[in-house]
Order: sequence, then structure tokens, then C-alpha cells
Amino acid sequence: MSMGDKGRTVHIGVIGLGGRGCGQMTTLLQMPDVSVDMVCDVYQDRVEKGIGLVKKHAGNDAVGTTDYRDILKNPEIEAVCVFTSWETHIPIVIEALRAGKRPCMEVGGATSVRECWDMVRASEETGIPVMLLENCCYNLEELTLLRMVREGLFGTIVHCQGAYAHDLRDEVGEGDINRHYRQRHFLNRNAELYPTHELGPIAKVLNLNRGNRMVSLSSFASKACGLHEWLQEHRPDSPLANAEVKEGDIVTTVITCAGGETIVLQHDCTLPRAYSRRGEIRGTKGAWQEDGRFIFIEGRSPVNPDYWTHEWESDKKYIEEYEHPLWKEYKEFGLRGGHGGMDYLVLRAFIESVQKGEQPPIDVYDAASWMAVTALSEESIANGGAPVAVPDFTSGRWLQERTDKATGMYALD
Amino acid sequence: MSMGDKGRTVHIGVIGLGGRGCGQMTTLLQMPDVSVDMVCDVYQDRVEKGIGLVKKHAGNDAVGTTDYRDILKNPEIEAVCVFTSWETHIPIVIEALRAGKRPCMEVGGATSVRECWDMVRASEETGIPVMLLENCCYNLEELTLLRMVREGLFGTIVHCQGAYAHDLRDEVGEGDINRHYRQRHFLNRNAELYPTHELGPIAKVLNLNRGNRMVSLSSFASKACGLHEWLQEHRPDSPLANAEVKEGDIVTTVITCAGGETIVLQHDCTLPRAYSRRGEIRGTKGAWQEDGRFIFIEGRSPVNPDYWTHEWESDKKYIEEYEHPLWKEYKEFGLRGGHGGMDYLVLRAFIESVQKGEQPPIDVYDAASWMAVTALSEESIANGGAPVAVPDFTSGRWLQERTDKATGMYALD
Repeated sequence: MSMGDKGRTVHIGVIGLGGRGCGQMTTLLQMPDVSVDMVCDVYQDRVEKGIGLVKKHAGNDAVGTTDYRDILKNPEIEAVCVFTSWETHIPIVIEALRAGKRPCMEVGGATSVRECWDMVRASEETGIPVMLLENCCYNLEELTLLRMVREGLFGTIVHCQGAYAHDLRDEVGEGDINRHYRQRHFLNRNAELYPTHELGPIAKVLNLNRGNRMVSLSSFASKACGLHEWLQEHRPDSPLANAEVKEGDIVTTVITCAGGETIVLQHDCTLPRAYSRRGEIRGTKGAWQEDGRFIFIEGRSPVNPDYWTHEWESDKKYIEEYEHPLWKEYKEFGLRGGHGGMDYLVLRAFIESVQKGEQPPIDVYDAASWMAVTALSEESIANGGAPVAVPDFTSGRWLQERTDKATGMYALD
Repeated sequence: MSMGDKGRTVHIGVIGLGGRGCGQMTTLLQMPDVSVDMVCDVYQDRVEKGIGLVKKHAGNDAVGTTDYRDILKNPEIEAVCVFTSWETHIPIVIEALRAGKRPCMEVGGATSVRECWDMVRASEETGIPVMLLENCCYNLEELTLLRMVREGLFGTIVHCQGAYAHDLRDEVGEGDINRHYRQRHFLNRNAELYPTHELGPIAKVLNLNRGNRMVSLSSFASKACGLHEWLQEHRPDSPLANAEVKEGDIVTTVITCAGGETIVLQHDCTLPRAYSRRGEIRGTKGAWQEDGRFIFIEGRSPVNPDYWTHEWESDKKYIEEYEHPLWKEYKEFGLRGGHGGMDYLVLRAFIESVQKGEQPPIDVYDAASWMAVTALSEESIANGGAPVAVPDFTSGRWLQERTDKATGMYALD
């Protein structure tokens, strides 16, 4: 990726204009080589809002529709961005592929392993790539840590952890259940609902689908008390006040990899706490923990001379020293878009991969396997924590050590 | 427990005089109502050292032996303290019970579920209590947090975590394999080898065996690279330099409880990091994390006014405000013994329970179920992470909500 390079204009349709969809579209509208020609949402009020945003930021009159098939039928549209509710991402992506469009989609979990396979087959059969917009893969710390891993600071990596630890009781307990994409999942499912913010960066560290892969998964849910107690106290008159919540407050998932590494994920959204993705990288030469911003690098970090024990350092000077070149360039270019700038980078990676006709850095196999974690964890929890096999969506291509070099995202030199 | 109260003299025999045994015995020798009459180790040099320590600290001539059965045969001995290698704790405790002695033992994991049952049956059949000396249950922070839990600050508890995260590569890679209790486990087993430092305090928080219990357990090991790489670099001439290490660097265990709570434990001893027990307590009203010393208590901790999000506080002021009464009294009395004072408290709890003829606060059911985690995790790992049932060693007594009140350890008022 090169900052500020303007390629040929990519004509896109935006599907899904909730809060996130409008935010992402606004970031896209800042790119001079992107033209948002059509906008879609099932709610007409959102369509009007989307048309207004396009007019305001880009000046053109986008065509609005409440049926995304109108976008897929339009021969002028090359790419579609799917920002809809979680459970509709994959079905719309598959339809887009079959219609010859190049799709990207926001993050979320899958409802079945089958739909992940269907997406992989649709992409393979049409020859059209899919990109999952996992913005956290592009965050400063995650990219910089990836560089440190690639440069060997952590030695052999043996274990990674992460979480989506975000107290969402207020958001999930609010508003119209029919329009609230997250709420209906919390009320009706018990699973690792939202794995990719932490699993995405871990997947890059562990070379998943590129020389390594997830082999088995086990998942465990605590009881669900947090949202229910909160609703009874804070929303006593809500129709949800006495609703039974299915999603356990803490859902812990353990994944084993072909390379012998383990991964622990947690979904943690209905108890009080501070936000964290709770990243951890553990290797034979170093350790990093997001909570506390702790790092220890053997041979560099100070060791207590009294007895043989280590002390953490702050990771700040390492993040500065090993700052990923993409972020150096990005800071000179000027950060833009949501979530500290990472949204712009992931969207830009999509647009550039479309312009160049290349595979995106987070491809259909990544999307399928990362999103499948939700369906697999649901299965494991339903079976009392029984391990479930993670399918090899690459059909053996992971053995060929596929690389990310094509896009430059992880080309560090 | 009351500080400084001198009860009737308890005549004890000490079995196991390695580093830990000598340290614990030295703490016992500071108690005016404890008489160490006999000392034992399989190595004569240690026996001599033990006799010398008794002479130095208490003035009497202890009888030394290399056969612990000599202690069990001595009618003057009322209680025995088992500080031997991990795998011999339970067999010696069972023999002590059968000989009519009142045993306590240092921490460690079990080698089989069967030996845990054998210990429970021996205690039930003889009517003699057993105490596990889990010192971390008596640490300032753990006891103070237990008080906070009991007083409702965390609301309904739904999830706890902990670890034995201690870089022991130097210790495990050193010395004579035959005399090194920990080393042979690391070289030959793959399990949650050392669960009780974190599980003990969690068990008290979750009322395990007293109205709640562990129901199932699943365990997962990463590959074992840390010790092997370290030995090759730092001990190239050691006979261990090319040894195959069986213990995975990170062993993650997930336990589900009858009350719906989940527990995550990690054994983490062969990779570089700072020491931590990594405690976490998660409830519907509050959260605590040992790493970073983070706490959030709803209604007390500040909330960011810009948008609905929480920020951690330091736990320090809470630890001061809710300091456990036992520790208040202990500080006035004067801290003594190893590990910041908690060793003295746990040993004192044992001695007082012997003097009073009462059940100790960490009893045979706690010992059996906590130590069984090692054997159960070994089974789960051997079966690819399959969940294994945790036996109800209480045979239903946990349903009766047995309390710790008898000893006062957790009587907070």
C-alpha cells in the first residue's frame, strides 16, 4: 500500500447504512479514486441519510435502494461494501460474487460452517476475491507487534491470546430489537459471537492459512447474568427487562494450531470492565501483554539481579522503535477515518486490491476460517465444550506457505 | 484464628527437608506451641540439616530418620507435615491417616483421580481431617478480595481466572534430576501441573465444595519449546540439553461449575515473563485483574462522561479499605515466615485446627478436588481436549452449603 497514490476510479455500491455503514462510507468518500454510485439499506430513512452523506462529501447524486440486488444488477458497479447485520454478510457476499462484483464485508461471525464453505466455493468458482475488513489487523500496535514477531524478537511463538472485552450492556439493552444487529444475537445465541478483532491480528502472527492453520476449537460459556441484571436495574420498563439472555457473559474459546500453538479468545461484553482486546503474544524469547502494556524481551529487558526473575517493561519504546513502515508513511500522509485511523487503512487495502486485480491481504480463506469460529464455538458449547475440528477452507493451500507479500501489507523491507 | 494465642503444644514430625521443607519448618519453629520432635528426608544430608535447624531455632534435639514410617510409628507425634516431592504427598498423607496422625501437606498436583479418592476415603474412614497448605488462600490481596466478594462489591460472580505464571527455566534446567521434584514432571508429563496457587483462592470465591462445585474440565497444551531452547542455549553441556520436554509451555484449563461460573487456569513456567498469579474476578457489578492491578466497581469507579465507557482504577485503595481483619491483626502481631507472611498464616491455621480438633479451612475435599485438576487435565490433554467430569469428592456434601465459619478464616465480622 502506498499512501496518497490515486489509482483508477473504483465504482462501488454500499450496502448497509447503520451507524457503522455510514461511518465506513464517509471514510471511503474521502478517497479521490472511489465513487459511491449506489447506496442501500432495508430502511428508507437510512437510504435517504446515505444519499445525503454522498452528496455532502463527494458531491454526486448516489442512487438509493432498499434492495441490494439493484446494486448487484448495475453493470457500472465494480465493487460492493457490505456493512449490514452480521448474519447477512456472507449471503450478500455470495450473491455479489455470483453477480460478478468484487465484495468486501465488515466483521462479524458466521451462523454456520456451511455458509463459510459456500462463500469459499463462490469465490473459487467465480475467480473473484473476497476481503474481510478486519480493521484491527491494521492498527498501529498490532502491525508493529507483527513486525517485531517477524524480526524474531519474541523467538518461537507458542501461544497468543485476545478478547473482545467491551462492556456493551447499554448498547445491547437499547433500542429497537428489529434494527439492532448485535442485540438479537446476544438474546438468542451462545457463542464466540465476535472473534475477529483479536483473532485477525493473531492469525497474521501465527501465519494461519499460510503455512499454519487452526485445527481444533473448544468453547465454554459462563452463565448469562450481566445483561439481565443490568436491564432489570436500568431498563425496568423495557420489553427486554425480563428477557432471557442466551449469550454467556464470558465465552472462552481455545484453539489449537497445526504448528502446535494455542490461542485463547474471550467474548466479554455484558459485564462491567474497561475496553481491551487483551492481546498477548508469547514466545521463547519474549512476551507482550496489552493489559498493562507490558513487554519482556530476553536480552533487552532488565532482569532483577537479586534473584533470577523478570520484570515487565512498558511496551511504549518498543512500539516507537519498531513502528511498522506503513504507519510511518500513514502519519506523514495524515491519519483519517474512524478507530484511530485503522478503518482508512483496511478500506484502502480493499480499494487498492480491486484497482490492481489482486488478492486482498485478508482473503476469502481468512474470512471463512475466522468467521467460522463463531459457528464452531456455538457447536462446541452446545456439546458441553467438546472439541470440534476447524475445517481447512484452503483445501490444503495453507501447506504451500501462501504469503501476504503481494499487497505489501506485511512486506517489512 | 487469633494472633499470638498460645495453645497446647502440638508435637509434629516434618517429612521432606528440601528447600521448601526447611523453610516451612523454620516458620513452624517460631511458634511457641509447636514442637518439632522428628524430621525426615530420604537424603541423610538433609536430615542432618533439619536436625540442625531445629536445634538452632527451638533448642531441642529432634530425632532424624530417612524413613517417614518411623515418624508414623511414634506415639508422641500428633501431626505430620508433608513437604516432600509432589507425587509423594498423597501416599504419605494416606499412610499418616491410617497411622492415626493428623496430616497437612504442601501444594502440588495429583498423579491420578484414584489417589484423591483414596485420600478422601482414608480421611472419612479414620475420621481424621487433612489440610492442604495452600498459602495463597492466606495472602493479603486474595483474602481482601474474598472479603470484597462476600460483601457484594462484585455483584454476582460469573467468571474467575488465574495462573501460575513463573519463568522457572533456570530452576527446572538445573541440578540433579533425581532430587528435583519439579523437573521430572516437566520432562515427562503434559498437564496443569501446579493448579492450586490460583485455584485455591478462586475456589473460596466461588464456594467450591460448599454450595458449588467443579463439574467439568478441559485442558489444552501448547507445544513445548521454551525449556528446550533455553537448555540448548544456556546449558549446552547438560544431560538435559537434548532432552525432550513433555510439558507444554502454556497449558490452558477451562473449568465449568455447578453454579454456571467458568474458571480459566494457566500453567506458564517455561517462557520468559514476569511472575504473576494473573488473578481475575468478574462479576455483574465489578471486575478485578491482578495484572496491572486494575479494578472497576460499578457506582464507585469513575465513568468517562463523553461516551459510555469505563476506565480502570488502581486496586490499591480498595485493598486498603477492605483489608481482611485477619491481616489487620497479623500486621499488628508482626509478619513472619516466607512469601510475604502468608506461609505463617496457613501453617498457623493447621496448628490451630489440630489444637481445637476441628476441620481445617482447606479440607480433604478441597485438597482432593484441587489436586485432581492435574490428573484430570492430563487426561483431557491426552484426549485432545475432550471435557472430563470432575468427581464430586464430597459425595453430595457440597449441596449442604458447608461453611468455613468454624475456623474463622472467612468469618468477616
